Formats: sequence, C-alpha cells, structure tokens
Amino acid sequence: MSELQRIPVGVLGATGMVGQHFVNFLKNHPIFDLTWVGASDRSAGKLYREATSWRLDGVMPAKTAGLTVQECKPTAAAPKLVFSAMDAGVATEIERAFAEAGHTVVSNSRNHRMEADVPLLVPEVNAEHLGMLATQKANRGWKGQIVTNPNCSTIALTMALGPLKAFGIEKIIVTTMQAISGAGYPGVPSMDITANVVPYIGSEEEKMESETQKILGAYTDGKFTDLAASVSAHCNRVPVVDGHMVAISVQLAAKPTIDEVRAAIESFRGLPQQRNLPSAPAQPVIYMTENDRPQPRRDVNRENGMAVFVGRLRKCPVLDFKMMALGHNTIRGAAGAAVLNAELMLSEGLL
Amino acid sequence: MSELQRIPVGVLGATGMVGQHFVNFLKNHPIFDLTWVGASDRSAGKLYREATSWRLDGVMPAKTAGLTVQECKPTAAAPKLVFSAMDAGVATEIERAFAEAGHTVVSNSRNHRMEADVPLLVPEVNAEHLGMLATQKANRGWKGQIVTNPNCSTIALTMALGPLKAFGIEKIIVTTMQAISGAGYPGVPSMDITANVVPYIGSEEEKMESETQKILGAYTDGKFTDLAASVSAHCNRVPVVDGHMVAISVQLAAKPTIDEVRAAIESFRGLPQQRNLPSAPAQPVIYMTENDRPQPRRDVNRENGMAVFVGRLRKCPVLDFKMMALGHNTIRGAAGAAVLNAELMLSEGLL
Amino acid sequence: MSELQRIPVGVLGATGMVGQHFVNFLKNHPIFDLTWVGASDRSAGKLYREATSWRLDGVMPAKTAGLTVQECKPTAAAPKLVFSAMDAGVATEIERAFAEAGHTVVSNSRNHRMEADVPLLVPEVNAEHLGMLATQKANRGWKGQIVTNPNCSTIALTMALGPLKAFGIEKIIVTTMQAISGAGYPGVPSMDITANVVPYIGSEEEKMESETQKILGAYTDGKFTDLAASVSAHCNRVPVVDGHMVAISVQLAAKPTIDEVRAAIESFRGLPQQRNLPSAPAQPVIYMTENDRPQPRRDVNRENGMAVFVGRLRKCPVLDFKMMALGHNTIRGAAGAAVLNAELMLSEGLL
Amino acid sequence: MSELQRIPVGVLGATGMVGQHFVNFLKNHPIFDLTWVGASDRSAGKLYREATSWRLDGVMPAKTAGLTVQECKPTAAAPKLVFSAMDAGVATEIERAFAEAGHTVVSNSRNHRMEADVPLLVPEVNAEHLGMLATQKANRGWKGQIVTNPNCSTIALTMALGPLKAFGIEKIIVTTMQAISGAGYPGVPSMDITANVVPYIGSEEEKMESETQKILGAYTDGKFTDLAASVSAHCNRVPVVDGHMVAISVQLAAKPTIDEVRAAIESFRGLPQQRNLPSAPAQPVIYMTENDRPQPRRDVNRENGMAVFVGRLRKCPVLDFKMMALGHNTIRGAAGAAVLNAELMLSEGLL
Repeated sequence: MSELQRIPVGVLGATGMVGQHFVNFLKNHPIFDLTWVGASDRSAGKLYREATSWRLDGVMPAKTAGLTVQECKPTAAAPKLVFSAMDAGVATEIERAFAEAGHTVVSNSRNHRMEADVPLLVPEVNAEHLGMLATQKANRGWKGQIVTNPNCSTIALTMALGPLKAFGIEKIIVTTMQAISGAGYPGVPSMDITANVVPYIGSEEEKMESETQKILGAYTDGKFTDLAASVSAHCNRVPVVDGHMVAISVQLAAKPTIDEVRAAIESFRGLPQQRNLPSAPAQPVIYMTENDRPQPRRDVNRENGMAVFVGRLRKCPVLDFKMMALGHNTIRGAAGAAVLNAELMLSEGLL
Repeated sequence: MSELQRIPVGVLGATGMVGQHFVNFLKNHPIFDLTWVGASDRSAGKLYREATSWRLDGVMPAKTAGLTVQECKPTAAAPKLVFSAMDAGVATEIERAFAEAGHTVVSNSRNHRMEADVPLLVPEVNAEHLGMLATQKANRGWKGQIVTNPNCSTIALTMALGPLKAFGIEKIIVTTMQAISGAGYPGVPSMDITANVVPYIGSEEEKMESETQKILGAYTDGKFTDLAASVSAHCNRVPVVDGHMVAISVQLAAKPTIDEVRAAIESFRGLPQQRNLPSAPAQPVIYMTENDRPQPRRDVNRENGMAVFVGRLRKCPVLDFKMMALGHNTIRGAAGAAVLNAELMLSEGLL
Repeated sequence: MSELQRIPVGVLGATGMVGQHFVNFLKNHPIFDLTWVGASDRSAGKLYREATSWRLDGVMPAKTAGLTVQECKPTAAAPKLVFSAMDAGVATEIERAFAEAGHTVVSNSRNHRMEADVPLLVPEVNAEHLGMLATQKANRGWKGQIVTNPNCSTIALTMALGPLKAFGIEKIIVTTMQAISGAGYPGVPSMDITANVVPYIGSEEEKMESETQKILGAYTDGKFTDLAASVSAHCNRVPVVDGHMVAISVQLAAKPTIDEVRAAIESFRGLPQQRNLPSAPAQPVIYMTENDRPQPRRDVNRENGMAVFVGRLRKCPVLDFKMMALGHNTIRGAAGAAVLNAELMLSEGLL
Repeated sequence: MSELQRIPVGVLGATGMVGQHFVNFLKNHPIFDLTWVGASDRSAGKLYREATSWRLDGVMPAKTAGLTVQECKPTAAAPKLVFSAMDAGVATEIERAFAEAGHTVVSNSRNHRMEADVPLLVPEVNAEHLGMLATQKANRGWKGQIVTNPNCSTIALTMALGPLKAFGIEKIIVTTMQAISGAGYPGVPSMDITANVVPYIGSEEEKMESETQKILGAYTDGKFTDLAASVSAHCNRVPVVDGHMVAISVQLAAKPTIDEVRAAIESFRGLPQQRNLPSAPAQPVIYMTENDRPQPRRDVNRENGMAVFVGRLRKCPVLDFKMMALGHNTIRGAAGAAVLNAELMLSEGLL
C-alpha cells in the first residue's frame, strides 16, 4: 500500500503519556497515517514538539514532532478515525462529540467501556462483540461509533484465558504485579515504589473483575451477556518498568487435562492472525516452557509487545489450574490494543 | 536477669547469611547468651571475624567477632541449646547428632520440618504442637530434641491465618511477592531481578502448601493431623530487600462477617504475648487500616521485625475473604522465629 | 533532665516531608520537646494526624499526632526555638518574621544560607561561624536570629573535608550519587529513576560549590571569607532510598602523606563530640577500611544517621587524593543537622 | 551481498554472557556469517542450544542454536576470523594459539590489550593504531594477528574525548556509574546492588586510566606513545541494567571556547562513518541538549547501542570543561566494538 493510500488517523490526548505511546506505535504503521494530534486548549496551536515533554525511550518521531496540535473538536479537518488517549476526566464528552459527528473513536479510556452498547474488544477473544455497533448507532443516533479496549491488566488476563473459554470458565482468582508505566507520568512517586510493593491500585480490582466478565461473555442479538464466572482480583504495583504479570488460578467446567489446556493455549489463533492484520502477533498467546518464565524485563518487548506470554501451567489444589501470564501494559494493554482494534474494524468493513 | 545467669547458646552454621541473622538477632538478648559458633571445617579454628564476610547492614557484633569458630560437633563444650542455620545439604545428620547427644536443636533448616514427630512451631498459632517432643524422644531414643520453624513465606501466611482458625479454614489461595534476602548471599543475581519479577522459587510452593497444613493442623495424643484444607501457592521473587508479601484468598466454614474476621485478627494473642516472652511482639498480627498497606519497605522493620502486618481485608468474590499480609522473612521468618520458639520452650520447662 | 525541664520547640512546615523528618528525629529527644507544629493555612486548625500524610517508615509519633497545627506566625504561643522545614517558596518571609519577633530559627531551608550575616553551620567544622550572630542581630535589628544548615549533598562533602582543612584545600572535584529521598514527596517520578540515573538536579551543583566555600571558609571580626579553593560538582540522582554518595578528588597545599590524611580523618572530633551533645555521633567521620565501602543501603543508618562515612582513600593522579563519602541526606543532611545546630547553640549559651 | 558471499566467522567463548552478546549482535550481520562457536571442553560436542543458558532478553537466534559447539582450538574448520569473548583466565594462550595459526583474533578480552604491539582499537578515535599489525606479526612470527577493544567503561570515555583530542587533552577526572550487565552472569548479587551503590569495581580504575592513555595516544613507526595526560577514575556500580555513565572533567591545552568544544563533538566523524561500515552509527557521538540527558534507561538502546551520548557540557571550575557521557557497555563496550573493529580491518584490507 503506497503512502498516498494510507488512511489518515488522529490521536485525542496526544501529548500525554498514553498519547505518546500511540504516536510511537503508529510511527511506521503500514495502513494508518497519523496526520492529526489533538490535546487540551493549553497545547492547541503549538507544534507537537513544543507542546510535549517526550517521556518514552529514545526520541519523538520526526513527522509527528512537526504537526500542529489541534483542539479536541470534531472539525472537518479531524480524520474520520481517531484514537482516544484522553484522561478519564474529560473523555466522556469529547469521545461522544466525535462519535456523534460521524467519527470512529477507538478508545483506550475507561469511560465508555462498561456501557451496554459499547464493545470492549480483544480482537482474538471476542471479535463478535463488534456486532453491537449497529445497535449502538441506532440507540444513540450517532453517525459515528465508539469501540474500547480493556484496562492494561485485564488484557493480560483475558488473552491468557481466551483459549480456555471453550472449557467453561467458572471461577478466576488473579493476583497482579503491575509495572509503574501503567500509572503514566509523573505517576508513581519513586519514594513509594523503590524496593517496595504497593498492594493497592485505585479501582483496578473492580475494573479487572467486571471487564473480564464482559470480555469473556457473549454477544447475541444486540445484547452482551456477562460470563457467569466469579472473578476475584488482587492488584499490586511492583518496581518493574513495563509489563504486567498476572498469577491466575482458574476453575473449568469441562475438567480438561493439563495437556488439553496447554494445547488449547498453543493452538489459539484469532481473526487478527487469520487475516494477518499488521499489528497482530503471529501467535497471540505464547507458552514458555522454562520454569521461571515469563519475566517482564526479559520478555515484554518480544513480538513488538503485542503477544501475551504464559508459563508455569500446573494443577491448582483449590481451583483446577494455575499459571502466570505477562502482557505489555502500554502496548498490548493500551496503544497497540486500540490500533489492532481499528485494524480489525477495517478488515470487517466497519471503518 | 544478670549477665551471669543468661543461658549459653550456640549457632550451627553461624558464618552463613542465616547464621549472621542469628548472631545479629541475639546480640542484646536478655536471656540467651551467644557463646559458641559452629561452622564448616574450613572455618573452624578461625576467629568469627576472620571466617565471616559480614553481609548484614552495619557491623558485626563485637563480642561474637572474637569467638573462635568450632566444628559442628556435639562436644562437651557445645551449649545445651543450639540454633541451627545450617544449609539443607548438611543439616540432617548434624542436627540429629546434636539431638542424640542431648542438645536441644531449634532449627531454621527445612530438613526435619515435615517429619511426623517434629514440631513445626509458630508459637502464637500452634504452641500445643510442643506436646510431640515426648513422643519424639521416645521414638528416637534421643536425650535431646529438635524443634523447627517454617519457611519464611509460610510464616507470614500462617500468622495471618492463625486468628481465623476458629472459623474453620477450608480453602486457601496465596500469591507471594518475596524479597531477595530470602535467597541468602550471593543468592539472586541482580541481572535476574533488577526491575523484574521472577515467577518461580524452587520448591517454595510445595513447602508453603504442606507446611501450612501441618502448622494449622491439630496435635492430639502424640499425633499431628493436617488441616483438612486445600492450599494453593503461587510464589514470586520481586526486587524488594526484606519482607515477604502474601496476597491471600480464604474460604471459611463458619461464614463470619467481615467485622468478625477483623476483630479476630485484632484481638489475636498467643502464649508468647501472655507470657511476655522477650522476642514476642505485643501484638502478633497488626491490622493496618490504610488502603495501601502493609508495604515491605515501610513496615517490615516495625516491632523489631517480629509482627506480621495485615491489611486490605475485603470480600473475595470466589472464596470468602481476601487480604494482604507481610512478614519479615529473615527475622520473623527465620532467626527471630527460632529464638521465639526457644523462649517458648524455656517458659514451658522444655529446655 | 526531667520531662518538665525540656525546652519546648516548634517546627515550621511540619506536615511536609522534611517536617516529618524533624518530627521523627525529635520524638525521643532528651532536651527538646516538640510542642508546636506550624504549617500552611490549609492545615492550620486540624490535628497533625489529620493534616499529615505520613510518608516515613513506620508510624507517626503518637504525641505529635495529637497536636493542633498552627499557622506559621510568631504568636506568643510559638516556642522561642523553632526549626524550619519550610519550602523555599515561602521560607524567606516567614523565617524573617520569626527572627524579628525574637525567635531563634534553625533552618534547613536554603533561603538565608548564603546571606552575608547568616551562619551556614556544620558544628564539627565551623562552629566559630556562630560568632556572626551578634552582627546579624545588630545588622537586622532582630531580637531573634537565624542559623542555617547546608544542602544535603554539601554536608557529606564538607564533613569529609573538614579534617583536611588544616592541609590547605586548594581544589575539589566532586561527583554525587544522590538518593531519591532528597527530593521529598512525591519528588522523583519512578518512571524517571527506576533502573536509571538522572544526571541533573536543579541548582544542586551551584549550591554545593558555593556552600562548600562558605562552610570551609573563615569567620573573623564579623565577616565570612570564602575558602579560596575552586570547587566543581557533578550531581546525579540514583535509585537509592536514603544516603548521598560523593566521590571526591582534592588537592592539598601541604602535600601530606596518605597516612597523614587518614590519621586526620580518624582523629577528627569537634565541639559536638567534646561536649557530648545528645545528637552528636561519637566520631563524626568514620573511615571504613573495606575496599567497597561505604555503601548507602548498608551504612546510612549507622550512628543514627549522624556520622559521615568515608572510604577508599587513595592517591589521585590529577589532584592529590581521592575518596568516597556517604552522608544520610534526610538526617545528617537535614533534620538531624538542624537539631545538632540547636544543641550547639544551647551549649554556647546562644538560645 | 548474497548469503553465499558472507564471510564466515567464529566466536571463542560463545556460551558465556559476552559470547551471547556476540551471537546476538551478529545475528543479522550483512557481511559476517556466524558459522562456528567455540567454548570449553565441557560444552564441546553439544548443540549450542543445549550448552547455553540464554541470559539475554528474548530468545536465542535460531541458526546459532543449531550449531555444534567446538573446542577452542585453531583447527582447519575454524574460520579465519574469530571474535574472542573468552574469560581472562584462559584467553591469553588460546588467543595466541589462534593468531599463531593464522587466524585474526578480534578480542574483547583484556589479556592482550596493554601489550606493546597490540592495537587497542576504537575505530573512530585511533584507526591509525592498526598500523602496528605489521610489527606485531614480525615481532611474534605469527601468520595471524590480534586486535583488541577497550574495557566497557573506557570506551564511553574515549569516544566522548575523541573529538577533543585536537585541543590537547592534559588532565581527566572521571567518575563512572556502571550498569550491572558489565559484570556478566551471575555477576553482581542483588543483595549488593538493590537500592544501593557499590563504590568499587576490581581493577576497573587502573584499566580506565591506562587504556585511555594508550587509546588517545599516538602511533608512529611501529611504536605507541601514551597520551601525556594524567587520568583519574572513580568507578562505581549502580542499579542500572545496561549503560555506563561517565561524569568527565577535562583540561585542554588549547583553551577552546565551549562553543568550539560542542562543535567538535557534533561534527566528529571517523573512518567507520566515512566508509559506511555496517555497524557504524551515523554519528558516533551524539550531543543531547536536554539538561537531564543522557540517561541510561532512556538512551542506551538508540542507534543500536553503537553511539555514545554526551550531554551537560559546561565549564568546570577546576579543570576546563565538564560533561556526562553514556555508552552501551555490552554493545559499544563489548560485542559491537569488536565487530566494528573487524569491519574496519576488512575495509583496510587487513583480513
């Protein structure tokens, strides 16, 4: 696909930390061309390089650096497809305004995730949830639409459990060890987390529990039905830069053997793989056989941060199985997730 | 008690990291007087200061520094009471030799923990297990005896659950985040743990599961009966210096209210508290009400490292309750645990 | 000295991180009794426990917790001796108001440090600088007075060099590796410092260079004269919790032997030691002979954080000698420094 | 260049940590084809994947994984060009044996660095030192040859100072903050470095001082002459994964302005740039204008780890200028350095 044919896209909240992850993730994208960056009124009118304190490793992509920051308003100049990296404090109204005005908003913000007609999409796991968009447009009278991706810790959990859905998931207990990058910038004070563990992340447990039930639940006839499983999350912050680890115990109705569970994980593929979407990892969930893996620092950047790594599958004396999973919280858990969502929507003819 | 009346004690394996923790913990002990240090043949004959690379914070206690290291043999010069900080590779035979020769061995090593006639003691939780010592002596034909303390992660779990025993513990799922000091010296390579999590500690999960069942189980008529609860452990190493965190989900037969659970934790006291044993914390399990506590770096050194801190008690959607507990792995989980065991035995007339 | 006879003292800016260090350091002080805490209008009127998010290890001292926070005004109720932990943004006016009203302000803030009639005191190094107070009162028409202590990195440097003053210090090059606690709370974002070094601390190099010249300079006849030495500082932040390390190269006019330098360090004592001031370490600068010491995590808390540790004294191929020094930045470099200053003033009859 | 035309190369000591860095760095090399891996007798005969515990991020390159490990002997099967990642304990004899037998040994080991007829090469800085090889062969009667690269901390210093050579370097004081990966695996115990600084690295200061004088010195007529500058190094280990930081003060004979120094750094290019060598960074020394850069975690992986980053150039009150430099210790300071050395030799017709 030539440069001319790429689809122009924008990022709402482009100067913040999540916005920077979008800018970084999109910099060499073969289909989407980042031509528009929106931010708060304070930044609007400045060049992106002037408005942004670049916090990511390395340097700001040169092309984006030269864009002029726009107000977050659905003007004619704003691309039809916008990714939202907005703070929860302002996302609700702005995302709606864009959707109403005919834009597709692919959002990483939590504001609309749990609404009854908004897909909370993990392309390999619940692509069928996109079926809700017709209902959403009808309900809301929107020309555009909103699709969301889950919280950064939820995605590691739901990707790891996606392959087990067919066995009938009944109970989940998950303990997270989450990276500091999940809290943005300035985020977690170093006095709190250096050589320490903080056993609390505001609202995170509630989000993991409810989002997981929605994602692993069903879509039928314009209605989402939550997975009928109890989910319990313990969320902790640890001194790791990138990568959320989740220790999972799970109970499965079908009582598969451990070999069947392992085979389900390893053979798991979704629509993004079948269609070879540009940001899709060849294998969405990678099983590691070493007894001390996955590890965040060593594994998180493999597969461009888009795969989830699972290891240590073993019997659980209380529920049925236990295992460890790792996902890149700012890539697969944020910017990369949203971009893959948009790629799936494009391949479904929904853009 | 005057200096002259203090009871002479020894430490087996005194030059290693755990041995150093014993030396440090005993340095101002009001009852026990560390007069004898044993180590491998390679060290025997040297002064302790020459034989030992001091790895703890601060400096080696001056009095111990001047002791001559002895071979680990139950000679006449060895005190009747010896603490064992021996490596598992050599502890079995040496501890037995001392017990056979009439010494009381209070051991932090894992070798004898799970034997059918050896108490695995947590003084506040299962003091009655000391009743087994008569049987042990009879079985073995020993003049002396062996008492053990649990693994450093088990102790945080069993102390936190001790107050809940009366509610009938049925199921436990625990995920640990364990400090690097738990692996001794040189222990965990910095390349493995800097800004990382290692989701595996050899044999730790098995130890936590089986030791917990023994500790929370019953002693009757010369017999231990395991707690009839299923226990599942996920063990992880995190970049924290001291203090093991354990995230616990627990199911209780009596279905108490959350207030009853909280009250049980806060009112929990054991024999060490009733008898004011010198190393006993005033309150063995301290409940913290802040929503982000306990934290290892901030809380682990309170109460001389001898209390266990619990926080975030809340309902668990899968089992009944969940909470976080913290214990100092090298103090309450090792040297301090053994010393408290010996203090209890002394107060019971067992020394 | 009985409780009734202790001298009442206050802390300006008591709810902030530095203020908390004062509260902690004073909690068992034998002479000073913390009876008054001042903070911003927002906090005034609340109990200290309500107004303060306690950020230090362990728990808030119970007695202080129950004090009512006052406005930072020199009312009749405010003690004659106040320690200042105020932010630089507000310290100038408030400290002056207290001094004018007859209070002795012993300040950790930087605002008045470099003024021509304000002592910048390190009691072991330049006690004679207190001679300036008469001039200060005369100049300003104050009934009270202001004394300051240096920046947290300067103090490690000047304590380490104090013993070498007699050799004629000519040139100093110092590179610091400073702890995160030096930046307060929330202070350094964890995204900046986790597994990283930040080679810049705003204004720190300028402060180290100029403060060192003042501290090591002379006081004669109502005038300070800077040390006629060039000083060059490289300041860096490293992921350490407490303790600033300073790597020093120094040129000395007298060209002493290395043994003479070492002897000067080890025999160094000041007025605080001669008078046995309560917060004075027995030996202000402790030389460590191990080739890899001092180290912040292992040594910083020795001697209650009030000594400076020096090691690795060796020839410098460019200047004359090089060595490493360590000081506790929040104790000897802040709260403890100010309290020792006040103790010295008391012993000099200046309170 | 087609696959068939690539030059076969080997790695001596391929299973160790440095060896793994060579394997990783060479995996997609356009000119050199890694076809031969040598290691100790214990590993010889096994497949590389069986003989090697892979310690680097991600996974072992598949092609190398299938190679059979050879003994480190200069057999006919060994390639003419071998990179040496051997431990210092065995490198001397083995490297000589290869050189004697006609192989070119491009070594990262320290054993031959300081020998009078062995180039200690930094291609951008002292390419003319390769002139010594003719003398080396004549002296030794070798058919092959040995070229070395400097210690991992020296390279950051000499690259940063290379541009200043023309100004006449007279004095250098450097303080390092070195990453844990510099010590290999298991390397630095986490108990030593977590939230700590270790102010000592065995022999490192001596190496930095003498290697720098050789590298920045002259080669004329079969003779190296050391730079006539005094060099003083303070070496420290800090809890950073990759990237050595060096804080430099330097005195220059020509007394350039700060703008001239900055211009010299920014315009600096060497033979590797002029010839477009495959591993050469476009700009060998990159000046960063932000006041808090370079930083190891954020900058070390830019330019494939082959550039050195400099920042904070400013006047030094003692010498003339001070600045901070950063180099990737395992890439530009080890494997990448050696590969670039070989590329330069190839372009000079010396292979």
